Amino acid sequence: MAKNDKKMVEQITSMDEDFAKWYTDIVKKADLIDYSSVKGCMIIRPYGYAIWEHIQRILDTEFKKTGHENIYMPMFIPESLLNKEKAHVEGFAPEVAWVTMGGSERLTERLCVRPTSETLFCEHYANIIRSYRDLPKLYNQWCSVVRWEKTTRPFLRSREFLWQEGHTMHATAKEAEEETLRMLNVYADFYEKSLGIPVVRGRKTDKEKFAGAAATYTDEALMHDGKALQGGTSHNFGDGFARAFGIQYLDSDNQLKYCHQTSWGVTTRIIGAIIMTHGDDRGLVLPSAVAPVQVVIVPVQQHKEGVLEAANALKDRLSSVARVKLDDSDNSPGWKFAEHEMRGVPIRIEIGPRDIENNSCVLVRRDSGEKQFFSLDGIEKTVEEQLEALTLALYEKASANREAHTYTARTLEEFKEIAETKNGYIRSMWCGELDCELKLKEEADVTSRCMPFNDTECVSDKCVCCGKPAKTLVYWGKAY
Amino acid sequence: MAKNDKKMVEQITSMDEDFAKWYTDIVKKADLIDYSSVKGCMIIRPYGYAIWEHIQRILDTEFKKTGHENIYMPMFIPESLLNKEKAHVEGFAPEVAWVTMGGSERLTERLCVRPTSETLFCEHYANIIRSYRDLPKLYNQWCSVVRWEKTTRPFLRSREFLWQEGHTMHATAKEAEEETLRMLNVYADFYEKSLGIPVVRGRKTDKEKFAGAAATYTDEALMHDGKALQGGTSHNFGDGFARAFGIQYLDSDNQLKYCHQTSWGVTTRIIGAIIMTHGDDRGLVLPSAVAPVQVVIVPVQQHKEGVLEAANALKDRLSSVARVKLDDSDNSPGWKFAEHEMRGVPIRIEIGPRDIENNSCVLVRRDSGEKQFFSLDGIEKTVEEQLEALTLALYEKASANREAHTYTARTLEEFKEIAETKNGYIRSMWCGELDCELKLKEEADVTSRCMPFNDTECVSDKCVCCGKPAKTLVYWGKAY
Repeated sequence: MAKNDKKMVEQITSMDEDFAKWYTDIVKKADLIDYSSVKGCMIIRPYGYAIWEHIQRILDTEFKKTGHENIYMPMFIPESLLNKEKAHVEGFAPEVAWVTMGGSERLTERLCVRPTSETLFCEHYANIIRSYRDLPKLYNQWCSVVRWEKTTRPFLRSREFLWQEGHTMHATAKEAEEETLRMLNVYADFYEKSLGIPVVRGRKTDKEKFAGAAATYTDEALMHDGKALQGGTSHNFGDGFARAFGIQYLDSDNQLKYCHQTSWGVTTRIIGAIIMTHGDDRGLVLPSAVAPVQVVIVPVQQHKEGVLEAANALKDRLSSVARVKLDDSDNSPGWKFAEHEMRGVPIRIEIGPRDIENNSCVLVRRDSGEKQFFSLDGIEKTVEEQLEALTLALYEKASANREAHTYTARTLEEFKEIAETKNGYIRSMWCGELDCELKLKEEADVTSRCMPFNDTECVSDKCVCCGKPAKTLVYWGKAY
Repeated sequence: MAKNDKKMVEQITSMDEDFAKWYTDIVKKADLIDYSSVKGCMIIRPYGYAIWEHIQRILDTEFKKTGHENIYMPMFIPESLLNKEKAHVEGFAPEVAWVTMGGSERLTERLCVRPTSETLFCEHYANIIRSYRDLPKLYNQWCSVVRWEKTTRPFLRSREFLWQEGHTMHATAKEAEEETLRMLNVYADFYEKSLGIPVVRGRKTDKEKFAGAAATYTDEALMHDGKALQGGTSHNFGDGFARAFGIQYLDSDNQLKYCHQTSWGVTTRIIGAIIMTHGDDRGLVLPSAVAPVQVVIVPVQQHKEGVLEAANALKDRLSSVARVKLDDSDNSPGWKFAEHEMRGVPIRIEIGPRDIENNSCVLVRRDSGEKQFFSLDGIEKTVEEQLEALTLALYEKASANREAHTYTARTLEEFKEIAETKNGYIRSMWCGELDCELKLKEEADVTSRCMPFNDTECVSDKCVCCGKPAKTLVYWGKAY
């Protein structure tokens, strides 16, 4: 038993020793993914996929509440269709996979496997939108997309990944902007309330915005290692695509007008964000809402009379409030503890002969690791409270971590020193010029993460780079 | 108003006039699909996709109840991997789409877009199965697959379609056979109980079985036009793939043994089956369980005082028992009736000033079209009962239709005459020889649909084709 426990713990590289290896260790050892002979793609194993199913369920409910409908578009895009919007094709053409043969025949026109579906949605919208009565159209799609990346990492960057892409059409610019921000906030609330991950909501600079968008908004999360991760993006396309694809509607004033468009998406990267925000050296730590197993019951001295019966009865009771698993396998309790910690199960309940005698049980939260005794009376309510408290505690811990890793620079020297010696966000004022953005990238190896909505403090009146009058505060950082 | 109603009704080709056109009319006019510039692929529109979501929800619940877990495999298969099982590659290679370029680089090995994922599952299983303790493995995947068909029809045959594919691994042949039949029955029960579509459960002949399978079982449904549609299939692979991919486990007797494998799937064809089993000349008829809108409330004289309020109150009440929509648009009641009939909404409730006065409403079932008056007291229960009764009535109507179109042939002459003059199943005895199967195909233009489980009547002791001793009863027919 002791040997087994040790073996499992030893197998994880510690975060401080090698963060990248720690990450891939968790991904593999928590049974989230496996590799295959398909280079750059991953197999999402049942435990990882179940997390994704919970993410889908929660977000899809929000999408439907806000009036969106799901749809399915073809996975292929003819080259000529992809070419219709100039900025868009320039952004995506270099990284798409091309189908050139069907059976034994060469295709007359190449088809790319969708890297994103704006062009297909636009073609469809041009087909079905006639009048102002047809608007808004609020569509979403859950699917997989392909981008031919050279270097890949599970969940963070792979040639194929799962995502949802919302594509909406509106009568006015104002409505499109409202929709763009509404969905940014749906994502942000999901990150903060369901996943316990604090995000910075803000706008991307022109350099960092989506190919073809008028404006891109982002929810940025900060990982354990001080790198930023773009958690979700929401784009306002203005009427750019509508003009390229001829998407017009007859307004109530009898004028033909172009539609205004948005798109927004999140991907299986979310799982990477969970790992790198909450994980620790014992493995994954899952926020309650998306944990496939929320409570694992580990019987102690399970071969003693009455223990398994009590554990089963407890499981039945808790099933009404949580996703519960009873681990009555032959492995030792210590081995089980280590395994379910590795898999990030939010709550472990231990129950043995003495607990049964005392009408109590031991409850261990994955985040703190602290052992607490609770009466079996009202255990359902206790578990509900603890599941909620865990997500809140994760959120507070991650917020404190972000605060501790957010730095302010007023001069280029300060900026470069922070970039070199610290890991985290650098808050600095910016003049709005691309040149300064490029210079900071070159001299400090950071990119602009966003111009934040909720941090409006005027750090300085000068651009941190060129010293000219500043326009806006920017969060800079290294990013996944 | 009268003009509008007429226009909608006139737009549908009648079933008797042109069945194929009737089908595509419904598919388009009920807003199930749209075409795009991607040849042979379809856009599944929100109304069609919502039907698929309900199908997924019901089946996925059954899969999980029977112990299955979802997983996601890459959408690409390297050519060398596809080639690993001989019968399998011969079955699929001629109809796959090939990716040959990633970005601007030619790939060193072609990748096909998955036509089905046996090879990927096998590779993974070989990786993760070590001991009898690892078995069974019960995995399922919801995804899209691609087969490069030459002629396509919405839902019935398209180059890309949505499906689920279950792939399971077992220690023994017996367990694999049990699983194969268990899942065939899950499908059959879903067809009969949730969709009101009767199916013939049976086994495929060797000629018609899946490429690489030891045995294929099928649920066959009969469409309005007398053609059969394979509603779901379940395959027992024996240990054929396990041997090709080296999937072995160490048994409790310390012997290394090959695993036994199954796979099973249903596709968006289900939606085609619903249309062609239940639809009529007024459009789609949806069984209650998968109808995106189960009850539509149409206010009559909606501008009169109190009507919309009463309709809204009714909607709120019914929302606890059904998916309800209130159509308070400006269209005339007649136009609304025609539209919701076209979309197959199971129940329409009309409510106007006189109904409100009488504390009643008019309820019209989509299947019968009959108007019934019901008290508003207990309307929730009435709606629940009517929704259930509708699916039962659809089932009975479809069963009667199938019975009326099932013929028995004892001689080749009878067989050919039925095939020429009737539409439906032909029940006949068969010797088991491929030659006879091919001859019936050539002379009567039918294929064997299955050797049924629940129809064991010995029609004759001779093969209908060669006259030699018969082995089994076969259902023959033309098929989608």
